[in-house]
Amino acid sequence: MSKKKNAFYAQSGGVTAVINASACGVIETARKHKGKIGRVYAGRNGIIGALTEDLIDANKESKSAIAALRHTPSGAFGSCRFKLKSLEDNKREYERLIEVFKAHNIGYFFYNGGGDSADTCLKVSQIGETMGYPITAVHVPKTVDNDLPITDNCPGFGSVAKYIAISTMEASFDVASMCATSTKVFVVEVMGRHAGWIAAAGAMASTDDYEIPIVVLFPEVEFDQKKFLKAVDDKVKKYGYCSVVVSEGVHWPDGKFLAETGLKDAFGHSQLGGAAPVVANMIQDGLGYKYHWAVADYLQRAARHIASKSDVDQAYATGKAAVEYAIKGHNSVMPAIKRTSNKPYRWKIEMAPLSKVANVEKMMPANFITKDGFGITKKCREYLAPLMKGEDYPPYKNGMPKYVVLKKVAVPKKLDAFEL
Amino acid sequence: MSKKKNAFYAQSGGVTAVINASACGVIETARKHKGKIGRVYAGRNGIIGALTEDLIDANKESKSAIAALRHTPSGAFGSCRFKLKSLEDNKREYERLIEVFKAHNIGYFFYNGGGDSADTCLKVSQIGETMGYPITAVHVPKTVDNDLPITDNCPGFGSVAKYIAISTMEASFDVASMCATSTKVFVVEVMGRHAGWIAAAGAMASTDDYEIPIVVLFPEVEFDQKKFLKAVDDKVKKYGYCSVVVSEGVHWPDGKFLAETGLKDAFGHSQLGGAAPVVANMIQDGLGYKYHWAVADYLQRAARHIASKSDVDQAYATGKAAVEYAIKGHNSVMPAIKRTSNKPYRWKIEMAPLSKVANVEKMMPANFITKDGFGITKKCREYLAPLMKGEDYPPYKNGMPKYVVLKKVAVPKKLDAFEL
Repeated sequence: MSKKKNAFYAQSGGVTAVINASACGVIETARKHKGKIGRVYAGRNGIIGALTEDLIDANKESKSAIAALRHTPSGAFGSCRFKLKSLEDNKREYERLIEVFKAHNIGYFFYNGGGDSADTCLKVSQIGETMGYPITAVHVPKTVDNDLPITDNCPGFGSVAKYIAISTMEASFDVASMCATSTKVFVVEVMGRHAGWIAAAGAMASTDDYEIPIVVLFPEVEFDQKKFLKAVDDKVKKYGYCSVVVSEGVHWPDGKFLAETGLKDAFGHSQLGGAAPVVANMIQDGLGYKYHWAVADYLQRAARHIASKSDVDQAYATGKAAVEYAIKGHNSVMPAIKRTSNKPYRWKIEMAPLSKVANVEKMMPANFITKDGFGITKKCREYLAPLMKGEDYPPYKNGMPKYVVLKKVAVPKKLDAFEL
Repeated sequence: MSKKKNAFYAQSGGVTAVINASACGVIETARKHKGKIGRVYAGRNGIIGALTEDLIDANKESKSAIAALRHTPSGAFGSCRFKLKSLEDNKREYERLIEVFKAHNIGYFFYNGGGDSADTCLKVSQIGETMGYPITAVHVPKTVDNDLPITDNCPGFGSVAKYIAISTMEASFDVASMCATSTKVFVVEVMGRHAGWIAAAGAMASTDDYEIPIVVLFPEVEFDQKKFLKAVDDKVKKYGYCSVVVSEGVHWPDGKFLAETGLKDAFGHSQLGGAAPVVANMIQDGLGYKYHWAVADYLQRAARHIASKSDVDQAYATGKAAVEYAIKGHNSVMPAIKRTSNKPYRWKIEMAPLSKVANVEKMMPANFITKDGFGITKKCREYLAPLMKGEDYPPYKNGMPKYVVLKKVAVPKKLDAFEL
C-alpha cells in the first residue's frame, strides 16, 4: 500500500439538478491534488457500490466529461435509497466497507446526500476510532428539501425553487389570460413531504413587478378545508383567478396526507392520487370554479435546463471544499454555506461538524409563513430570492441539452461477493 | 370616417408560450404601415371583447412593452373559448360585430387561434359579401396541438414539443440514476386530446447521443393494456427503467378516455384524475414496479423560459405576414409555414386560403408512429427536430423572467351594451 490514498465518492438519496456539479467539484479538485489523492472511485448506485465492491474508476473519464457533469442533472454514477443501520445493529456492513476500502487503498470518503446520508457519513467517519480503520470522511450536502441544519441552504434546493417559481408564474399568466371564460383556479403540486421550502418558492412567482394571487399549502400548516376554500374564493373574486401551490406533504389535523383521501379505482383499490387532484376537486365541489392541475414530480428536481446559477456554483463549491478539507485532514465534517450578505448576495463555505448535521431536520421558521398560513413573509422572500438568482444554461445540440453520460468503467473486483 | 381603417386583433382559445410573439408581429408591423392602418384595437378576452365593445387600445402601449410581448407567454390581451355560431343560427352576433367595427372604423380583422377560430375568421371574412360590410380578415395560426392543415406546423407547438422532450429527458436521467433501488417507471402526461403530436415530442428525449427507453401512448392508437404492460416490462428488463409519455387523449377501444376510468372520491363522486395516475397504477398492479408520475398540464404550454427559437420566429413571422397580406387587400387567408429544406432547416411563409384551413384537423400521419404503436419513426423525428431548434431565452431580473403585463387601456365605448 502506498502512502497516497484513493478516494471514494458516492451519491445518495433522491438526485437533483446539481448533484453532479458537486461530483464535478470533488473530482476536479481531487485531480488537482494528485500528490495527496490517488484515484477517485465512485460507488455505482451510491453506497451499495461500496458494499458490493462495484466501483467506477472516475479517472477513466475524460476531462471534458467530468467538466460536463457541472451542467448535467441526475446522479451520473447512480444513487440509491439505502441507509446503513447503526454499528451495533449491523456491524457486518461496516466490516465490509472496511474490507472494500482496504482492498482498494481508500482513505477518503466523500458522501453526497441529505440528512440520512449525513448520518451514514458520520458513522463512517468514526470507524477509525471504533474499528481501527483510518478514514477521512466528509459529507457533501445535497437535498431539494433544503432541510439540513447549519448550512444556510442546501445545494439542489435553489434550482427546484427557481423551477417552481417560474412554472407557477408562467401557468398563472396562462390562467390570468383565460379566466374570464375558462379556468379560474390552477393547482400545482410540489415536493416536500415534511418541510415547505419548495412550496414557499411557488409564492415567489408573485413579484414586485406583477402581483399574482397565490395560495400556498404548507406541510407545516394543518389543512383546514373551509379556510382554504375561502382564501381561494377571495382571490378569485378580487383578481378573477387564483393559483394554488400544494406541497405533497399537506395533511389533515390527524396527520393523514391529502393525497390519501379515499380515492378508489375501478377495482376498489386505494389510489395514491397526488394532492393536486384532491385539492382541485375540492375547489370544484366547494366553489364550482373551473380548474386545471399539474403535478411537477421529477420534472422539478431534474430541471437542469433552468437551474439557478447560485445553486450550481454552491454545489460545485461544496464538492471542492470537501476535498480541500479532507486533504488537510479534517474528518467528520461538512462544507456548509454561510450567507454573509443579502444585498448584494454574498456567501462563503464554512466547515461544520457532522455530528451537528446528522439527524437534525430544519423546518421553515414560523416567521417565514404569513399569519393566515397561506403565504410567505418578506423575511422568507429575502431568504429565497438570492438562492434562485442567475441562470446557468447547459449547452444545446439540435434543440436538446447536451447532458453527459459517463463511461462508468468498473474497477476490477478483488473480493468475494457480498449479499446485501 | 377616414379612408384609413383601424385594425382589430384578438387571441382565441388556449394560449401558448408564443401567441404573444404573433401579437408582437401584428402590432409592430401595423405600426410600420401607419398610412394604411390607423390604430390597432385588441379584443379584451378575445372575440368577446369585440361583441361587448370591450376594446384595448394597443397604441397606448409603449414600444418596449410591445417588443416584450415577443418573450412573454400567455395571452396578453386575454383569450376565450367562444365559438361564433353560423350566420344562419346567430345573425345577431354578426350584426353586432359589424356595429362595433363601424363604430370604431375597423376594416382589418386579425384572429389568432386554432381550427375553431379559423372557422370564425372565415365567417367574418365573408360578411363583406353576406352582409355588405367591407372587412379584410386574416387568420394567424396558433395551437399547441399542431392540428391545422396546410401549414407545415403551428406556432405554439414547437415550444411545447421542446419543453416535453427536455422534461422527459431530464426525468429519465433522474430515473436512470435511481432505478437500481428505487423508481423504475416514470409516467408523464401531456396535452393532445385528439392528435398525438405533443406525445410524439416526448420520444425526442431519446437522441443519437443517448438512448432512453420510452413508451409513448398516442390518442391515435387504441389502448391495449396487455400490450402496453409488456412493452414497459421489456424496456425495464433491458434498460433497468422506462419512461412513459401518455397523451391525455389516450382511450380504450370503446372511446372512453383512460382518465375517466372509474375513479371515485370519498363521497363516491366520479374523479377526473388524469391519465398518468391511471397508467402508473396499472404498472404497479400489473408489473409491481415502483413508479412516479407527473402531469405537465399548463406548465407545458406556458413554458416560455425554454421556448423553441424556431417557434418564436415563426409566431412572429405569421403575425407580421398577416398584416402584410391585409394591407395588400388579401381577404380570407392565413399565413402558413412551408418547410423548404430539412437539413439545414429552412422555411418561408406562404398564403393559404382560409376555406381550406377551417374545420380540417390534421392528425399524425400513420407513418410517423412505429408499427408497435408505442414510438415514433425516423420520418417523425426528422419532422419534429427542426421545430424544437434553438433557444430564445427571455430576459431575467432577480432570478425570474421579465414578462410584460400590458396597461390594457380601454377604448371609450360608443354603443349600448350587448348581452352575450
